[in-house]
Amino acid sequence: MQRPRRPTLRDVAKRAEVSPTTASFVLTGRDDMRISEEARHRVLRAAAELSYRPNLTARSLRTKITRTIALVSDTIATEHYAGGLIHGSLAAAVKHQHLLFVSESEGDPDVEARLIEDLLGRQVDGFVYASMYTRQVKVPRALKGHPLVLLNCTARDAGVPAVLPDETGAGRTAARALLDRGHRNGIYVVGEMPADVFAARERRAGIQEALSAAGTGLAGVVDCVWWPEGAYDAVSRFLRSGPRPAALICLNDRVAFGAYQALSEAGIAIPDDVSVVSFDDSDLASWLRPQLTSVALPHHELGRRAVELLLAGDPAQPATEIERVPMPLRERLSVGPPRKPARAPVERTA
Amino acid sequence: MQRPRRPTLRDVAKRAEVSPTTASFVLTGRDDMRISEEARHRVLRAAAELSYRPNLTARSLRTKITRTIALVSDTIATEHYAGGLIHGSLAAAVKHQHLLFVSESEGDPDVEARLIEDLLGRQVDGFVYASMYTRQVKVPRALKGHPLVLLNCTARDAGVPAVLPDETGAGRTAARALLDRGHRNGIYVVGEMPADVFAARERRAGIQEALSAAGTGLAGVVDCVWWPEGAYDAVSRFLRSGPRPAALICLNDRVAFGAYQALSEAGIAIPDDVSVVSFDDSDLASWLRPQLTSVALPHHELGRRAVELLLAGDPAQPATEIERVPMPLRERLSVGPPRKPARAPVERTA
Repeated sequence: MQRPRRPTLRDVAKRAEVSPTTASFVLTGRDDMRISEEARHRVLRAAAELSYRPNLTARSLRTKITRTIALVSDTIATEHYAGGLIHGSLAAAVKHQHLLFVSESEGDPDVEARLIEDLLGRQVDGFVYASMYTRQVKVPRALKGHPLVLLNCTARDAGVPAVLPDETGAGRTAARALLDRGHRNGIYVVGEMPADVFAARERRAGIQEALSAAGTGLAGVVDCVWWPEGAYDAVSRFLRSGPRPAALICLNDRVAFGAYQALSEAGIAIPDDVSVVSFDDSDLASWLRPQLTSVALPHHELGRRAVELLLAGDPAQPATEIERVPMPLRERLSVGPPRKPARAPVERTA
Repeated sequence: MQRPRRPTLRDVAKRAEVSPTTASFVLTGRDDMRISEEARHRVLRAAAELSYRPNLTARSLRTKITRTIALVSDTIATEHYAGGLIHGSLAAAVKHQHLLFVSESEGDPDVEARLIEDLLGRQVDGFVYASMYTRQVKVPRALKGHPLVLLNCTARDAGVPAVLPDETGAGRTAARALLDRGHRNGIYVVGEMPADVFAARERRAGIQEALSAAGTGLAGVVDCVWWPEGAYDAVSRFLRSGPRPAALICLNDRVAFGAYQALSEAGIAIPDDVSVVSFDDSDLASWLRPQLTSVALPHHELGRRAVELLLAGDPAQPATEIERVPMPLRERLSVGPPRKPARAPVERTA
């Protein structure tokens, strides 16, 4: 690819009628050489007239700081909900005058190794290593010893700082949203909870903790994958066969979407007959009718915090701790008080 | 930030007991210097043992090619549906051994100018300039003369190649999905169509073209913003007051989502009573019940084509043309034949 010839420092010096060294000292703001105000002015004018821009590639060779960082992920760009992670990372990078490489391995270790090699070859100042789903990862060998923050994942290795959503807190929050409206009985979780899925395990722990503290517990679990169709099928079956629930805690908004469809077909009104609370606060939450109360996954904040931590990193005092980003409740219209048990009509005496 | 001392070419040469020049020739694969097989082997082994990686920053100063490209956009990373644009761009960049800077101006011209300056300072090889919504843009001055492909936007400037979805073709495709099942009458568009919105204008043109070719036309337009709530309100009002439609062409899946809610509340069955076809093929399309037939916005392919075009760019023969990426129909369950008009029951003669 061709491009216009780029004006060099030498061109600026020539136009300003000074030596390249003088021009360089003026343009990099160094004051350890005596330069007349008049010469300084000529250099700045020449630089402006030529649209000169300093060659940061050359400068980074001298300073060994490139002011670039890299976000290395499995498939983060593919996941709709994760746009916020990139967006938050970008915002923090721009704030600190850094540029961001975004790269994706699609889970292929060979691709990942090659990407990391390439990024190291370009001497990025640091890495955010991100996972789409919260999980424990093995930090790629090539990253060891480089400034690194894990995003949405943890590592066995000691001393690698990580930024994660506070899933246990989110579980407590969801349960409290129901408890606060008076729910104590008939509370079901919808969604499978395999022990190796962080979000499932921690949300469940938080839910049970809050219910226990209120002297109650879960009435049961409606087991299904975390997608609308599976949730629709499972909740439909449950409504046909099981006891009428008072409240559903759906493990994400897609599950809630399927639950809404099943409840609607069964003629059960939200929140009059059944309350629904969920996790994620994706767009879906505000599109459903009634709008869905959901505990937000703060993607933007997660990305922002990871980059902030990376750029503030002090290698003499590594942040070994895991930073938990709070997941706030977005209250909408899907939670109400429990339905009063139907009573036999009281006959009036005339 | 601190990092482990990086092994240099000199370290490799020393360990291999050859001159730095010899080591450099071996490691860059040059064959214009006679080097014994034994020395070559020593150099490669030393490089592996030291985890030596060539300094691409230094190399790019010599070759003037950095093998980096930049995606500059307004707010693409924020938009859920646009993850595919980044993903497709990444895939093509990786295929061609390039790394990708992703940057976002959030529509602020000052931020945009600073980002472009920074990227030019790092000597990226080329730019993809992307817009979240298809529109005409003014190419930033700083980008002129640099390898550039526009993504999801066009410019007045001649000679700037652009990659856009084929919205007119998509309009024809949506209309034909109905025509093919026998629809001729009672076909309504749902969604506002301001003349300055590319997608609206071109989809409408394509719809009308296909209907005209079949000797028919639109029965009307249900005007609403392209979001579920607005569509729900508008379609609900329309169903209460207007004639019963035979088919709805919703201008995106979010509009279809709102239309589904309104139809469901009115007790109108899809597709038995009313057929629905839409645009975007977002996740929603397969989550709705019945699953929604939708004309896909090929985000991944758009990103991929833009980067391919950029990296294949021949400055001697600029691609002045706009490349239109086809929008394929994803047939699901929301389109059926038109409902037969109800007949008076025929009395049987005994």
